Amino acid sequence: MQILACKKPGELEYQEEVCNRIKPGHSLLKVKAIGICGTDLHAFEGTQPYFTYPRVLGHEIAAEILETTGPNFQKGQSVTVLPYFNCGACVACQKGKGNCCVSLQVFGVHIDGGMKELIQVPDSSLIAGEGLRTEELALVEPFSIALHAVKRAKLEPREFVLIVGSGPIGIATAIFATERGAKVLLLDVHEDRLAAAKKMVEELETYNVRSGSAVEKLQEFSKGTMAHVVFDASGNLEAINSSFQYLAHTGRYVLIGLQAGTIQFSHPEFHKREATLMSSRNADRSDFEEVISFLKNRKINLAHFITNKIGFEELGYKFQGLLDPNSMVIKALVEF
Amino acid sequence: MQILACKKPGELEYQEEVCNRIKPGHSLLKVKAIGICGTDLHAFEGTQPYFTYPRVLGHEIAAEILETTGPNFQKGQSVTVLPYFNCGACVACQKGKGNCCVSLQVFGVHIDGGMKELIQVPDSSLIAGEGLRTEELALVEPFSIALHAVKRAKLEPREFVLIVGSGPIGIATAIFATERGAKVLLLDVHEDRLAAAKKMVEELETYNVRSGSAVEKLQEFSKGTMAHVVFDASGNLEAINSSFQYLAHTGRYVLIGLQAGTIQFSHPEFHKREATLMSSRNADRSDFEEVISFLKNRKINLAHFITNKIGFEELGYKFQGLLDPNSMVIKALVEF
Amino acid sequence: MQILACKKPGELEYQEEVCNRIKPGHSLLKVKAIGICGTDLHAFEGTQPYFTYPRVLGHEIAAEILETTGPNFQKGQSVTVLPYFNCGACVACQKGKGNCCVSLQVFGVHIDGGMKELIQVPDSSLIAGEGLRTEELALVEPFSIALHAVKRAKLEPREFVLIVGSGPIGIATAIFATERGAKVLLLDVHEDRLAAAKKMVEELETYNVRSGSAVEKLQEFSKGTMAHVVFDASGNLEAINSSFQYLAHTGRYVLIGLQAGTIQFSHPEFHKREATLMSSRNADRSDFEEVISFLKNRKINLAHFITNKIGFEELGYKFQGLLDPNSMVIKALVEF
Amino acid sequence: MQILACKKPGELEYQEEVCNRIKPGHSLLKVKAIGICGTDLHAFEGTQPYFTYPRVLGHEIAAEILETTGPNFQKGQSVTVLPYFNCGACVACQKGKGNCCVSLQVFGVHIDGGMKELIQVPDSSLIAGEGLRTEELALVEPFSIALHAVKRAKLEPREFVLIVGSGPIGIATAIFATERGAKVLLLDVHEDRLAAAKKMVEELETYNVRSGSAVEKLQEFSKGTMAHVVFDASGNLEAINSSFQYLAHTGRYVLIGLQAGTIQFSHPEFHKREATLMSSRNADRSDFEEVISFLKNRKINLAHFITNKIGFEELGYKFQGLLDPNSMVIKALVEF
Repeated sequence: MQILACKKPGELEYQEEVCNRIKPGHSLLKVKAIGICGTDLHAFEGTQPYFTYPRVLGHEIAAEILETTGPNFQKGQSVTVLPYFNCGACVACQKGKGNCCVSLQVFGVHIDGGMKELIQVPDSSLIAGEGLRTEELALVEPFSIALHAVKRAKLEPREFVLIVGSGPIGIATAIFATERGAKVLLLDVHEDRLAAAKKMVEELETYNVRSGSAVEKLQEFSKGTMAHVVFDASGNLEAINSSFQYLAHTGRYVLIGLQAGTIQFSHPEFHKREATLMSSRNADRSDFEEVISFLKNRKINLAHFITNKIGFEELGYKFQGLLDPNSMVIKALVEF
Repeated sequence: MQILACKKPGELEYQEEVCNRIKPGHSLLKVKAIGICGTDLHAFEGTQPYFTYPRVLGHEIAAEILETTGPNFQKGQSVTVLPYFNCGACVACQKGKGNCCVSLQVFGVHIDGGMKELIQVPDSSLIAGEGLRTEELALVEPFSIALHAVKRAKLEPREFVLIVGSGPIGIATAIFATERGAKVLLLDVHEDRLAAAKKMVEELETYNVRSGSAVEKLQEFSKGTMAHVVFDASGNLEAINSSFQYLAHTGRYVLIGLQAGTIQFSHPEFHKREATLMSSRNADRSDFEEVISFLKNRKINLAHFITNKIGFEELGYKFQGLLDPNSMVIKALVEF
Repeated sequence: MQILACKKPGELEYQEEVCNRIKPGHSLLKVKAIGICGTDLHAFEGTQPYFTYPRVLGHEIAAEILETTGPNFQKGQSVTVLPYFNCGACVACQKGKGNCCVSLQVFGVHIDGGMKELIQVPDSSLIAGEGLRTEELALVEPFSIALHAVKRAKLEPREFVLIVGSGPIGIATAIFATERGAKVLLLDVHEDRLAAAKKMVEELETYNVRSGSAVEKLQEFSKGTMAHVVFDASGNLEAINSSFQYLAHTGRYVLIGLQAGTIQFSHPEFHKREATLMSSRNADRSDFEEVISFLKNRKINLAHFITNKIGFEELGYKFQGLLDPNSMVIKALVEF
Repeated sequence: MQILACKKPGELEYQEEVCNRIKPGHSLLKVKAIGICGTDLHAFEGTQPYFTYPRVLGHEIAAEILETTGPNFQKGQSVTVLPYFNCGACVACQKGKGNCCVSLQVFGVHIDGGMKELIQVPDSSLIAGEGLRTEELALVEPFSIALHAVKRAKLEPREFVLIVGSGPIGIATAIFATERGAKVLLLDVHEDRLAAAKKMVEELETYNVRSGSAVEKLQEFSKGTMAHVVFDASGNLEAINSSFQYLAHTGRYVLIGLQAGTIQFSHPEFHKREATLMSSRNADRSDFEEVISFLKNRKINLAHFITNKIGFEELGYKFQGLLDPNSMVIKALVEF
């Protein structure tokens, strides 16, 4: 079968791989679609921590079961995959937080992922598709990342929320924050991304930081309160370090995006707010199940979200183009 | 009456002040004892944020009521004072977190404090002494700072806790963390401070960071888990920035101490732990009441805690000496 | 000035009362409007616990300040009143839950309330009106009762919520539950009350329990899940005891309404669900402030809520009629 | 192999059972020891809900692995079993609360349990013994029941806790409540049980309810506060219904024990306290892991806890005697 490997930063190559025997406790899946994540793009660029090469990318998976020993699953069933393989024994796993396991192996990050025609995954990583369409199934993982972050923040209705970055994670964060009754202001530098977000979340307010002062906009938006919660969904160092200023007293700042640099901020400014800074890493099974339930029950117009559909055989030469900041891509979906 | 003013960093002066008429809704108190806080020492040094000069210092107060209009208080009663005067209307106050009010006026920090024979405070800031002795009453504020931080951390029994700094706040933090069933390792560079802490909290483990590797010590102490919770009670920039490495995955880091510099740490290290960093600022009424209840019911041997007692009339020339790191002072108490 | 006293169950009488001197720490208010609560109606019937007679009723207050010593208030200002006067020292008050103080004195319940032209209340019970209209201000207390209950339940988005009773509290509970993203089914026996609720909360589903099986309706509504949370807003013993059956496994049941009888349910049914039953009593200052913020920012069409406006001078002879279950009253407002 | 079946209430019979082929995803275990639970005793009496007959009892299991396909387990390893087999799909499972799954099958309750020489259990129910001794491993389940209840209650240090029933669950509840810094009063009618508890938890206060008024004792113990938290570990209807009176305002009442009757209490008394009543059912994997960690690190003197050791071959005729309330049994352990 064909796989697409990232041999080193900047270099993708189609390779032929022999299908291995299925390991005990594992299922064989036919990949139907894979979403391209910022992590995949940055891994290709070589700017992502936690990566070594060569690596097969891809962790946002919609698939069909070919063979399984999972007790509640059967051949032909549509599934997605919980791509965070945890050890079950470390301090995080004992707390029920396998998402930040000390020895975490993320499918498509620490180990080879889903850019293959067929994949093998542990039975315990399967999540039933519950009738979702293929393209919805491929979005369960990124939506779960956003939901996990929103739950970390323990949002209250009517709180003012600032989201930095109107990519797929930022938009999904806006969806779940709005659902909880929060008032959301979304920042970005790309007008088209803000427009897409606005089409998906009617109540949303958006602001292009190139058009003036985001601080002033936030003050007006929040009637002087500033943001009860800030989410960084940009993964941009400069954006991360400059967003501490948006926090209201008692504010919480949730970092979803990741980059390799050093976070810096003024201690007195942080202290006087009695602020809280938290990272949000990956997601857990309950997040995936909630997202599936959400997608089944709400009408989300994905036309504004999945901006690009690419055949697996085209991906090799189209991947580079997805990195162009002017490409107006929000979410690209690879179809098999 | 006599007051002791800090005219500018490094300069204290006794001054004579005319007693003003009592303002409506205020009580007149005779100060019995005042604890000297790190904040007071740093204010004298000129290294503390939030300070302007001249300023009368002192916010750890044991006093007796001379006159009051507080409905549940009466003349002659022993009290302590909740020295954080909040606005009641801002985002923090609306959340019930007056301790980090946007317009907070801390008695002895933003406005003149307790280094006076007589003070006026709002009736609403009085807290009944409940039979505590004068020296215990003067400790209610610093103990409340520690309790507030411990409650921020939501400690669970059997969690591993690392406390950096064996001053009054560090020791009180160790007391409340131990009470919750946590296993506590306390770090400092001064052997005598660690010895005093150990005398107050039998179950405590202590380690002098000058004697080797604190990381290795913590690994051994926690059987490889590292710290579920780190408390900084040093207020030292270098210590603060280097303590991120002690965090277990899922770990929480609570900053109690304050300094004027820039906090810095690696984003990937923070992210992979899904860590949480929080400031803990001041305390609230319920913390004060819990501490009073605690001091009434537990036998804490304060002989190892209050290392110096100084008459108010001596304080002017003895203050400088308290800054000497080799003075072996833990808590100095000013008596009137 | 005129007051309206409930001399004994079933008997109201206008009386002339001399205005007393204002007590220290108290404000004198001119009452502008008072809402009539189920508590008032039941007190008149004589079926309410905690009541003794004679008693001046009324605790849902919109007023104007005539005189005050409250530091942040001034003459002429519109206010509402936090009518739960707590001791500040008991186990509940120490937990910051003055709403269920051991020695609670509710204005209009344990002590004489607001059915007077002028009232005196402690300065500390004043809550700024923030520009709300008189009729909105009179609704802050009942809305706060509902919000308090919703916060007790710690609702999550997409949870199924069943509310029993479409009176003012039931409707307000539906508003706040919907705001949090819950899916709400509201039960009552009166079609007009359900219709009014539906007009106020568009997303709401309603069901008349006289029209068939509420259990079957709930099963269909929740796709077999049953209710994550049940709120009783009926205060009817039979309804309370029969609503345990609506609970999903892990379900929470919040009792808002109060009656004098004995609650009864099957232990095995409760146990197998690992259910939680909680009372919700009164509200607290933060609830009041949140409701005021809510009413300022949302457009609630009160025309369907305040069904009757009555002059204070008419109340004596119109009160009896409000008890008629067919009167189609939701909220009656007394105007001065 | 031999099994011991409860054919109907009051009748136990040794039977010969053919060993079945191991089902996929299951492990074969050799039972080393089984604790006898109140549930087993009441099942034998026929007073336990959720039971049908015939039934092989036993769910407190210490065992050794004979065969397994569990990825992290191996032959010869000591294990205990999480005996609550949940569906993974219902409302409770989706909330991560498999302990109260809608279709829960408890090993030894809804399906045949551990009173056999060899048992088969799903790989996913295995829990590594981590070096615990056989008799400790057999206690992990009942200790987890207690820990689960203590965590439900969200105990705070210095809270007053009343535990009703000094059987194994009551004593283990006292251990975990004390560990959290709570002040515990334990009630029973048997002096020897109270004495055993006291030997295991030094700080504990005990009271024989036959010796006077438990209400007065509690008032004295709590200095008038009454109990912040009441745990019922008696499973006795009369005790359950009469323990509402012990609750402080804001109090929480956790039902651990189960019986088949109707719970009854006064609504006004419950309401004025803003009380919370919660059932605690079974436990979850994290409870088991915490208990194992606890037993590894603390020296608990089990001599006062495991009062009877019985050979499996004797159990048939000794079982009846364990029901005698004067038998002075706390925990009986069956050895194989």
